[in-house]
Formats: sequence, structure tokens, C-alpha cells
Amino acid sequence: MRITVLGAGYMGSAMATVALKRRHDVRLWGTWLDDELLDAVERGGDHPRLRLPLDGIRILRAPKLEEALEGAELVLHCVNSEGAVPVMKKAHAALPDVPILSVTKGFLEGREGKMVRIDEALAETAGRALRFVHAAGPAKAMEIARGVLTWMVFAGPDARVCADAMAGDHLYVELSDDLAGAEMCSALKNAYATGLGIWDGLVGKDAHNARAACFTQSIVEMRRLVLAGGGREATVVGAPGVGDLHVTAAGGRNRAFGERIGKGEPAREVAAKMLAAGELTEGYAAIASAWRFAREHAVSDLPLLRTLNAIVWEDAPVGATIAALRLGS
Amino acid sequence: MRITVLGAGYMGSAMATVALKRRHDVRLWGTWLDDELLDAVERGGDHPRLRLPLDGIRILRAPKLEEALEGAELVLHCVNSEGAVPVMKKAHAALPDVPILSVTKGFLEGREGKMVRIDEALAETAGRALRFVHAAGPAKAMEIARGVLTWMVFAGPDARVCADAMAGDHLYVELSDDLAGAEMCSALKNAYATGLGIWDGLVGKDAHNARAACFTQSIVEMRRLVLAGGGREATVVGAPGVGDLHVTAAGGRNRAFGERIGKGEPAREVAAKMLAAGELTEGYAAIASAWRFAREHAVSDLPLLRTLNAIVWEDAPVGATIAALRLGS
Repeated sequence: MRITVLGAGYMGSAMATVALKRRHDVRLWGTWLDDELLDAVERGGDHPRLRLPLDGIRILRAPKLEEALEGAELVLHCVNSEGAVPVMKKAHAALPDVPILSVTKGFLEGREGKMVRIDEALAETAGRALRFVHAAGPAKAMEIARGVLTWMVFAGPDARVCADAMAGDHLYVELSDDLAGAEMCSALKNAYATGLGIWDGLVGKDAHNARAACFTQSIVEMRRLVLAGGGREATVVGAPGVGDLHVTAAGGRNRAFGERIGKGEPAREVAAKMLAAGELTEGYAAIASAWRFAREHAVSDLPLLRTLNAIVWEDAPVGATIAALRLGS
Repeated sequence: MRITVLGAGYMGSAMATVALKRRHDVRLWGTWLDDELLDAVERGGDHPRLRLPLDGIRILRAPKLEEALEGAELVLHCVNSEGAVPVMKKAHAALPDVPILSVTKGFLEGREGKMVRIDEALAETAGRALRFVHAAGPAKAMEIARGVLTWMVFAGPDARVCADAMAGDHLYVELSDDLAGAEMCSALKNAYATGLGIWDGLVGKDAHNARAACFTQSIVEMRRLVLAGGGREATVVGAPGVGDLHVTAAGGRNRAFGERIGKGEPAREVAAKMLAAGELTEGYAAIASAWRFAREHAVSDLPLLRTLNAIVWEDAPVGATIAALRLGS
């Protein structure tokens, strides 16, 4: 199968290596932001983030988008949420009518001025329906590429085609038709993992009960948001919700971002420093956009998300604001 | 309120300190196995496990069970699952008809030779209905006693009375009428936390995807078992299921037991060593009794529990058995 991967960062390069292992004809297209990464690869080195070689994968630079897409039978969409619309503006004319397996998540402002899911925003950009399948679940790129057992959910009408192409060996793929729920879980878990980081930074190590309470509250609120967005509870309880929050809250940038805030650094300063270091997390924006989505959909009873938004975006003091949080389902 | 706590171990002594903070008249009764702990307390020292003083709490030794129960308006049942039936045999004649808030969980063989929940087994022992309320949720005893924010679920018809007596300050109590689901979650999480420990021991630290997959599978299977036992999905998704598995799998004896098995020590040997050190975990027995419950209730599709039972109770080789595990919801 001819598979084109859009986005040559962490996840794009990891998915490309999986596709290659499945013996497909793989092209990896990098955006203008991926040039440095691909320079290193073309000099014969490992991918700098993935720290693995990409031998056997055809590398294409940003100007070669049309060539990358030509004849593709499956597109893997691994552009980050900020780049997704700009890339789609350039790509849509050359994009064949094939399934698009996407790891990209998040809410964007849609045509009517309200927050919509990224697959909806990209269909608006393309001016036509796209065959989006969202790939959710606890799947760190490095581990997928290295063959660690991984459980992903592919959600959308074309999920089976995508699974036939990519699943096998260490990659277990569950099929789902809950595109809305899966994509929302992928986005929301970054917001709530930041919250668990704040918690860890604030209360320290010997507060397992408090951390578990925050984890529970996160799932309760994700469920409310997903139901309001047309998704299903089973998706929240499964790999896209519970599973992905578990792995995201255990480590990584979103949690680290939150931990520094919990220890007392103002959120804006942490965000500025991490941005300068090229490490800014998706959780930062995800909190604001989830909160905006909640208000636009009149989802109430989200005390944790309200608290996170106040701390991260409204300069609320972390200790007092967390202390005032009232849990509940 | 006059509150009698049965069982002076970790959880009993912790709940006694919470009751005292709520300004109740608290009696702490120790079983014959708690003598050493209470010796230390009566010499004026801290409770040896809880590492906190129990000043202001009236201590009663095993022979004074009737005196302990006399005039009690609320009983906190904190006897472990092995001691529960022997204690109830001695207690039932003196036990007033008041709510019994219980942290004890597990399956026992009932009158008809099948596995039943411990509240059902104790009602059989007492020969009458008991007003059981199960206290579930992520609640390490040490942290409850030290005032760490804790989310518990009290489940049963008398839940509100129990919450009025115990909730407040750091202890958030959610009310539920799902006694079956809450108690099953409390028992099952020990079995599955052992499984997560095995996983950690086998695959090591850089396998977050695999751990999250196992966590997800645990929740999927706990949901199936709880539904078969007459409980509700919401209980599994909330503090009793997701929350308590999160905290139990993060550390503690059940996880440690599993980790040693995952690293290659035969389960029987680990169990024998931990038993000799006074550290045997509830997860060991919980795996066998959950598996027996599953067969008696014809719950299928439990690949993880089947795998755990094979490794822990049937001497199946850990690596090959885990490798053959097929995930799925």
C-alpha cells in the first residue's frame, strides 16, 4: 500500500516506521518546521527526536507536498494542531479521496465562530468531506516505534481499512465508530494531565489519595464533555480516555508543565520558558479551548476544568484555588 | 455519636482518628491479631503501623467485644477479609441494629457453595440482615489519618447517616446506592493492581504504553465483572474503580507482589516470603476468588484475569503467558 505520512515530528516519524514494518511503500513529508529534523536524517543519522533511523522511508520536504500525496492510498495525518489548518490549505487540492488516519486533536474555532473538533475544522478548510479516522489511545511515539505493546483505538467509518494497514505484532488496534469521542478524549487528556501535574507539584509525593481523586474527577468531567460533544461513555472508559490519561499523567511535558505551576511558578512564565525551549505543551492551549467548548455547549459541573482554567489562564493563585475545589460526580 | 471501630490495624485506627476529629465518642476494638499493635499504643506510643498517636480513643482488647459494641450508634467494620467471619460469629449477638460502615471487601464462599460478597457472607453468619454500607475509593489509611484530600464513596441504604458522621474537611464522601458495585471494585482492584505490578516487573520502566494498555484492560474487565454481580458501570468509572485502581497500582503491597512475579520469582515463593514477613497481599487471594466468581457467573472475555490466575495460581510462565494475552474490550 502506498502510505503518505504528513508531519515528520515525533509521532509522524514513529507511525512511518510502523508502516514500513508492515511492508508498505512509505513517504514521510515534513512541514517547514521539520527541516532540521529531516536534515539530520538525510545526513544519514537517526531522527533526532525518535532517535531511530528512518532507512527505507522516502523523505519529502515541505515544497514537495503534491508529490508526497500523489497516488497515496492512505494518509497518516501527524501534523500538530497548530499546523493542521495551514497544511490542509496547501494540501487539499492534491489530497486523494482516501482514508486519513489522524493523531491530531484539539478544538479550533470553526466557521461559525465556535469551537469545533479538528476534523471538522479541516473539512471546512478543504471545502469537502474528508475520510477522517482518529487514532486515539495511550501511545507514546518512542514506544510505538520500538515495538512496545500498544493499544490504539481507530475511530471513524474507515477505521477497518486503517487497522488492516497498520495493526499487528505489538500494535493492537480496536475499531470504533465514535470519532467525536475518541478525538475529544485525545485533546482533553492533555488538559487534565496538566491538572494532575499541578496537583503533583502542589501536594507532593505522599498524597496518593489526592492524586487519585483528581484522576477520578478528570474522568468524570471528560465523560460530561464527551457526551456533550456527541461522543460515547465507552470511549472515555476505554483506551482513549482512561488509558491515555493514565500514560499522559505519568510523565511527559503536559505533566511537567503542570508540576512547575503547582510548585508556584506562574503559568505564563512557565509557558514562556517552555516555549522558548521548544517544549511548550498542548495542555496549555487545551485547557483554554476545552473551557471555551464547555461554555459554548453549556456543560456545567466541571469544577476541575474551571479550576485549571483559572490557574493557568486567569492568574488565580494555585494553592487557594485548588483548596476551594469541590469534587463530585 | 458513639462509634465503635472493629479492627485496630491500619485502616481501623485511621478511621478511628477521623471519627475522633469529628468529635465522636470513639472506641477502637482490636482482634486477637491486633494485640501487639495495641500494646504499643497502651504503653503511650504511636500506633505502630499508622505512626500516629491514638489519644482520646478508648482502646478495647479482643475479649471485650460486647463492651465495645454496647450502645454503639455506628459501627466501622475494618476487620480484614480473613477475620471478618470469625469476628462476626463472636459479635453478632451483641451487635446493635445500626449502620455498619465497612472497608472490608472480597469474595467468600457462601452457604450454597458459591462465591458471595463479604457483606452477604456476614449476613449469613449473623443470621439476619445487616445494615452494611461499603466505603470504597482511593483511600490509603495513612493519608486519611494525616488529612490528605481523599474521595470516598459510601454505598448502601444507610450511606447518608455514615457520611454525616464521617465526612468533612479533607474527607469528601460521595453517596451511592450501589453496594454491590462498590464492594466488588474494592476487591477487584487488588487483583488487577497485582496484574499491573507483574506488568511493571516484566516490561520495565520504559513501557508506558503497555502499562496503560493493562490499566485500560483492567477497567474493561472490572466493568464486566461488576455488571455480572449486579453493580453499575458508573461505580467502575468513578472513585471505587478507576480511582482506587489508580492509587493501588501506583504502589503498595499488591503491586510489589506482582512486580516480583514479573521479574521472574515464582508466585508461590513470593507469596510464602511475603506471608512470612507479615506482608502478604490481598491481591493474591483476590485473583483466585475473582476468577472463581467469574466462572460461577459465566463471565467470559476476561483475558487479563485469566492470565493473572494462570501465572499466580497455575504456575504458568510469566513471559510467555503475558505475550499470549490478547487485549480487547
